[in-house]
Amino acid sequence: MNIDFTYENPTRIHFGKTALDHLSEELSNYGKNVLLVYGKASIKKIGLYDEVISILKKAGKNVVELEGIKPNPTYNQVVEGARLVREQHTDLILAVGGGSVIDCAKAISAAAYCSGDPWVRYWGNMEYVDNEVVPIGAILTMTGTGSEMNSGSVITNEDKMLKIGRVFPMHNLAPRFAILNPEYTYTVPKYQMVSGIFDIFSHLMEQYFSGDDDCVSDYLLEGDMLALINATRAALKDPRDYEARSNIAWCSTTALCKLLAVSKEQDWMVHMIEHQLGAYTDCAHGIGLAIISVPYYKHIYSYGLHRFVRFAKTIWHVDPTGKTDEEIALEGIECLSNFIAEMGIPQHLRDVGATEEMLPKIAKSTIKCGSYYICDTPGVLQILKEAF
Amino acid sequence: MNIDFTYENPTRIHFGKTALDHLSEELSNYGKNVLLVYGKASIKKIGLYDEVISILKKAGKNVVELEGIKPNPTYNQVVEGARLVREQHTDLILAVGGGSVIDCAKAISAAAYCSGDPWVRYWGNMEYVDNEVVPIGAILTMTGTGSEMNSGSVITNEDKMLKIGRVFPMHNLAPRFAILNPEYTYTVPKYQMVSGIFDIFSHLMEQYFSGDDDCVSDYLLEGDMLALINATRAALKDPRDYEARSNIAWCSTTALCKLLAVSKEQDWMVHMIEHQLGAYTDCAHGIGLAIISVPYYKHIYSYGLHRFVRFAKTIWHVDPTGKTDEEIALEGIECLSNFIAEMGIPQHLRDVGATEEMLPKIAKSTIKCGSYYICDTPGVLQILKEAF
Repeated sequence: MNIDFTYENPTRIHFGKTALDHLSEELSNYGKNVLLVYGKASIKKIGLYDEVISILKKAGKNVVELEGIKPNPTYNQVVEGARLVREQHTDLILAVGGGSVIDCAKAISAAAYCSGDPWVRYWGNMEYVDNEVVPIGAILTMTGTGSEMNSGSVITNEDKMLKIGRVFPMHNLAPRFAILNPEYTYTVPKYQMVSGIFDIFSHLMEQYFSGDDDCVSDYLLEGDMLALINATRAALKDPRDYEARSNIAWCSTTALCKLLAVSKEQDWMVHMIEHQLGAYTDCAHGIGLAIISVPYYKHIYSYGLHRFVRFAKTIWHVDPTGKTDEEIALEGIECLSNFIAEMGIPQHLRDVGATEEMLPKIAKSTIKCGSYYICDTPGVLQILKEAF
Repeated sequence: MNIDFTYENPTRIHFGKTALDHLSEELSNYGKNVLLVYGKASIKKIGLYDEVISILKKAGKNVVELEGIKPNPTYNQVVEGARLVREQHTDLILAVGGGSVIDCAKAISAAAYCSGDPWVRYWGNMEYVDNEVVPIGAILTMTGTGSEMNSGSVITNEDKMLKIGRVFPMHNLAPRFAILNPEYTYTVPKYQMVSGIFDIFSHLMEQYFSGDDDCVSDYLLEGDMLALINATRAALKDPRDYEARSNIAWCSTTALCKLLAVSKEQDWMVHMIEHQLGAYTDCAHGIGLAIISVPYYKHIYSYGLHRFVRFAKTIWHVDPTGKTDEEIALEGIECLSNFIAEMGIPQHLRDVGATEEMLPKIAKSTIKCGSYYICDTPGVLQILKEAF
């Protein structure tokens, strides 16, 4: 581990079939005014909305609701939420839903008492959040983003056609508590399930494909990847397999709780490209990541050859006998591609709402980063064309 | 993951060559009165004592010192520290040293304002700590126990001949911050280094050898074990290999930060036996664990055969071709035994100060626990005789 680091994670996680039982004890730590943030009908369909409202009422809370948070939460919704927080003097923002809802709650918390333009300060200039924030609690109904145990927040500014992710200070903008009952994820449609799974897998790869030192984080990332592949295959067979769904949920949380990122340079270029794809289309985040990953990794693998060889052997059990490193690495990427196909994920950007005209705009507006190699705009365009 | 759980870990870790640079910013969060707790001369020999005192003085702190904490910290030292805390109105207990010193700091913090007899309440009856506690900071100079990022505390009551470990509430008795510069561990003698390494390995196995569900924690435990074996071999060749020592340090922290224990029943019987060995001898903790582990696992493997087969194949790359599960499992335990020998660890209890007369007393006073199988006193005695 050659890169010095500071790690902290203040989120208390309640996990399992009985996780919601902890909500009332958590609520007792906060004042009366709760802003309940959620998406659409899904939490009502599974009965969770009624349960949560009933627990909030028993706890004597004043509840204001902000519903309709979109899969790519918009800055306009953040502004609306921030207004409600100021009006209600909110003591706790309770986010019920997937990562989008939790991301939105963090953004609302940061923006509510921001002096100046929150978008310019916190997403444009990535300034440190120094104003008062409102504590956040989360009840998770979809897995993938890991937002329940980190301080990241991805917001789409529709006016500016920008989807920007940032990491807030952990100590005040990571959720104070998160409730994860994997059973809530049973009713997520298969397309959303595999999208979430690939989001997790991508988080692991974005951290893994960097550095060439011997580093504990890489072994833990491999552990999570192997667990996730096993659990995915079980969940594809039976989406109500609790063991599989709970493993997927915990891989999701651990993949992005930042512990597996320590002392890692990290890559994140697949996410940067997908964020701009998300700004131009309604493509589900994990689906976009899956489509971009294979051409992207074919584009960069030779710059980090040893790591791609290790990926092939450790994660996909590629037999190296009689093969060059080059061949082993490419076989590993082929296994990744097969895994994506096994999940029934579309293979092309044209299948998910992208048009050929969008590609140069996406390439140009993508933030360029990376570890083994940093692509330029023509490089990104090439990857997008191969993915098209 | 079939067992519901709550996980939290409030410790902020500063890791690497520049970790000590964070001490003054951490100190600014606490009042003026600091109780500095440490062991013997080693922190003075490496110059750390002078550096820490200088930073404390610059921060304007009033420092009271409690030195001479023993490798198996005694309850008498806890009582002495608790008295100092009350007299000084301590705002922060700063522990500088290995796990013993940090364990002692936690015990002092819990005991200082305890109403009633702290030993009876907090080690005898394992009561929940409900009194005021004093925040703890840690600067680590030896790895192994993981005490820097958890709320465990093992204390020896010399009068009662008992060495008892307990887990305090995480939110107030885990260190608020911990500073880990792996370079501090360079001067630890080889015997202490391998003792620490086996302590880590044992922590991983105690968690791993339990349950038979598919559980993410097992994959992460395997990741840590594989990382630790690699790093150990590098550190045996060159104890000043920073990459190796930093990996060992981080395996140590992650092995017992409780994240890898979630949804795991766990075993901990090897630790229970060693704790009583430690109450009767001065045997280094990790050395005792190593000597006990092989006969213990030979005693219980058949009750958790599948897990021992997985251990053999995943951790030691045992080739299963043409072998029964029984043979594969035993070959895995043999590999563990070879790894212990490779580290130059003594193979017998008689080499580390135990006498034959002690064995029945150790067996009788050992707390009996376990996952796949729970040994009785004659069973423990049998294991001790095989280890003798």
